[in-house]
Amino acid sequence: MTLSYPINDRHRIAAPQLDVPARLLLGPGPANVHPRVMAAMSLPTLGHLDPSYLKVMDEIQSLLRYTWQTDNPLTISVSGTGSAAMEATLANSVESGDTVLVGVMGYFGHRLVDMASRYGAKVEKLTKPWGQVFNLDELRQGLETYRPTILALVHAETSTGACQPIDGVSELCREYNCLLLLDTVTSLGGVPVFLDQWGVDLAYSCSQKGLGCPPGLSPFTMSPQAWEKLQNRRSPVANWYLDMNLLNRYWGNERVYHHTASSNLNYGLREALRIVAEEGLENRWQRHYNNAKMLWEGLSEIGLKCHVAEEFRLPTLTTVRVPDGVDSKAIARQLLTEYNIEVGLGLGELAGQVWRIGLMGYNSRKENIVLLLKALQETLYA
Amino acid sequence: MTLSYPINDRHRIAAPQLDVPARLLLGPGPANVHPRVMAAMSLPTLGHLDPSYLKVMDEIQSLLRYTWQTDNPLTISVSGTGSAAMEATLANSVESGDTVLVGVMGYFGHRLVDMASRYGAKVEKLTKPWGQVFNLDELRQGLETYRPTILALVHAETSTGACQPIDGVSELCREYNCLLLLDTVTSLGGVPVFLDQWGVDLAYSCSQKGLGCPPGLSPFTMSPQAWEKLQNRRSPVANWYLDMNLLNRYWGNERVYHHTASSNLNYGLREALRIVAEEGLENRWQRHYNNAKMLWEGLSEIGLKCHVAEEFRLPTLTTVRVPDGVDSKAIARQLLTEYNIEVGLGLGELAGQVWRIGLMGYNSRKENIVLLLKALQETLYA
Repeated sequence: MTLSYPINDRHRIAAPQLDVPARLLLGPGPANVHPRVMAAMSLPTLGHLDPSYLKVMDEIQSLLRYTWQTDNPLTISVSGTGSAAMEATLANSVESGDTVLVGVMGYFGHRLVDMASRYGAKVEKLTKPWGQVFNLDELRQGLETYRPTILALVHAETSTGACQPIDGVSELCREYNCLLLLDTVTSLGGVPVFLDQWGVDLAYSCSQKGLGCPPGLSPFTMSPQAWEKLQNRRSPVANWYLDMNLLNRYWGNERVYHHTASSNLNYGLREALRIVAEEGLENRWQRHYNNAKMLWEGLSEIGLKCHVAEEFRLPTLTTVRVPDGVDSKAIARQLLTEYNIEVGLGLGELAGQVWRIGLMGYNSRKENIVLLLKALQETLYA
Repeated sequence: MTLSYPINDRHRIAAPQLDVPARLLLGPGPANVHPRVMAAMSLPTLGHLDPSYLKVMDEIQSLLRYTWQTDNPLTISVSGTGSAAMEATLANSVESGDTVLVGVMGYFGHRLVDMASRYGAKVEKLTKPWGQVFNLDELRQGLETYRPTILALVHAETSTGACQPIDGVSELCREYNCLLLLDTVTSLGGVPVFLDQWGVDLAYSCSQKGLGCPPGLSPFTMSPQAWEKLQNRRSPVANWYLDMNLLNRYWGNERVYHHTASSNLNYGLREALRIVAEEGLENRWQRHYNNAKMLWEGLSEIGLKCHVAEEFRLPTLTTVRVPDGVDSKAIARQLLTEYNIEVGLGLGELAGQVWRIGLMGYNSRKENIVLLLKALQETLYA
């Protein structure tokens, strides 16, 4: 073999064998991965159309339906992180000129606004100070004013730690003839989610929080009503990778090749969902709630306050007020370098004002709370 | 905690512990994963902004530049499979009304056509029978006729096993003032690729073929010229997840949060690229060529013919003609069930006419060729 050009060795760095610190990931995600998930991911790679892999896909679909409490046929894992499934909900449901009403009570509401506008939506916003949630009257008022085709809400706002009540929302949506789109990134697998009882039409989540996988896959589901809107589009979905018409032919009975899905990542997701089914949703949600309560009490004991009113506080993600005069970044850095603990910083309106502490999935355990509280205390009052 | 609704247990299946067959993946990808890559992926998960993870990102960027033979600053891994990076090249470079000229000589050329049209491009096609490649005169004629803003070619057509020569193409593109976009999904890490010498402006690949990782990440790069076109857009990129303006702020010096990248997948990619740098590109390309040559000779010895003329044959992916009267699906099924060997079937124009045999990355080894040839012989002539 003769080469036409000399090899450029400028970027041929001698990287050492990889050695990474073992962090306790108590920020907004990723959380630490369940050891059984890691072991499952290490099983031999299969082709994306191997009969043995198709079985894994079917099991994932069932177990995702259980975890989300939905019967939606189109319930799958998207080959990308949570933001990809988020974009998938909008790409498939929005057509140019549609009005999308977004409830913005934090960072991820803003992201929904940005994404929806890229698909040609006329985007309207309802806003709340970060850390608060919408009541039904406010949502009704928004629907009455803007008459959207889609109402997009964030169930668990990862940037604020607030949990938006969803009961009663879909009745409003039916009244105003619009679809309900819900972000469950920080709720799935940790906080009660009843997609069908709530009448949610489009939802997405991620693998690396309440489910205890590494990042890389993202659960997606759409109701028969949302599927019907997709079938009645006037224009093709403006995104090939996330087009549910194509993905449904791969995940459904036809098994038509779309993209090269990652068997290893999906083994991990299957194992994580299997653990959810073994534990049972009620036990799992209760565990998350009990541990969050322990954290909140412990924070109070060391003189720290939560940002969100207890009634609307997420068990999976707690925003803790930074005491006056304390540099939130410096404390987070100290927790990382001295204790190998990652916590999150405030975003947007809450920058510098809160830390974000996640107790999600495999990480929602007593020993993590005890360690974190002691480390926080030592760091703050040293 | 009181739940508002009873739990629906309909989808709470009792899935057994996962046990998958150990396949030898000699199809069009995924290939088997290098054991060192698997081990690296099992290291503890890091947050996407952890200083230790940012270092991993920098190393990936350098080593990807080496592997692609480019100095492009914006050289990254996209958090999705190869099709995601493919879509990223078009999403960032195409604006509504742009003319994109696609060289279609197989399935992935058609995919480029489909994707580009979703971003509002006026798509023009040059076509070739599957298994052939374009010459410079044909490309010049296409550029002269259609005056596109982008010429999109597939370097290594995974559906046909043909390798499109790229020397001299960028000189034409400069003459006609258009960008050159190149699919290197089945060439990166296995076949000589000289992005900068070839004057390529946008390129993408995948993790699961020549690099020896599982699927889930996809290399992406763009030249300063393509970056300039992106900066001069009249409209926002119609895809949030793949918007390189945002991704550049995460991969570049600013380190602004975009999405939750998968540290574990990127550990694997880093290890795979580290192995490429250890082996050296010239040795690696030579190994792929030598092994392919051994396969081609062995196929001929058992009476099988290759579909593509030797001059344009890909060392990574060989299309083998199915003998008259043989059911290609039945043989592939037998290889899978009796020998645990996966080979690919023909797609599109080549459905039923070829098998697709991949010798990529870690799988390009003598023992695999010997086993496959013997298994093929036994299966065909039993």
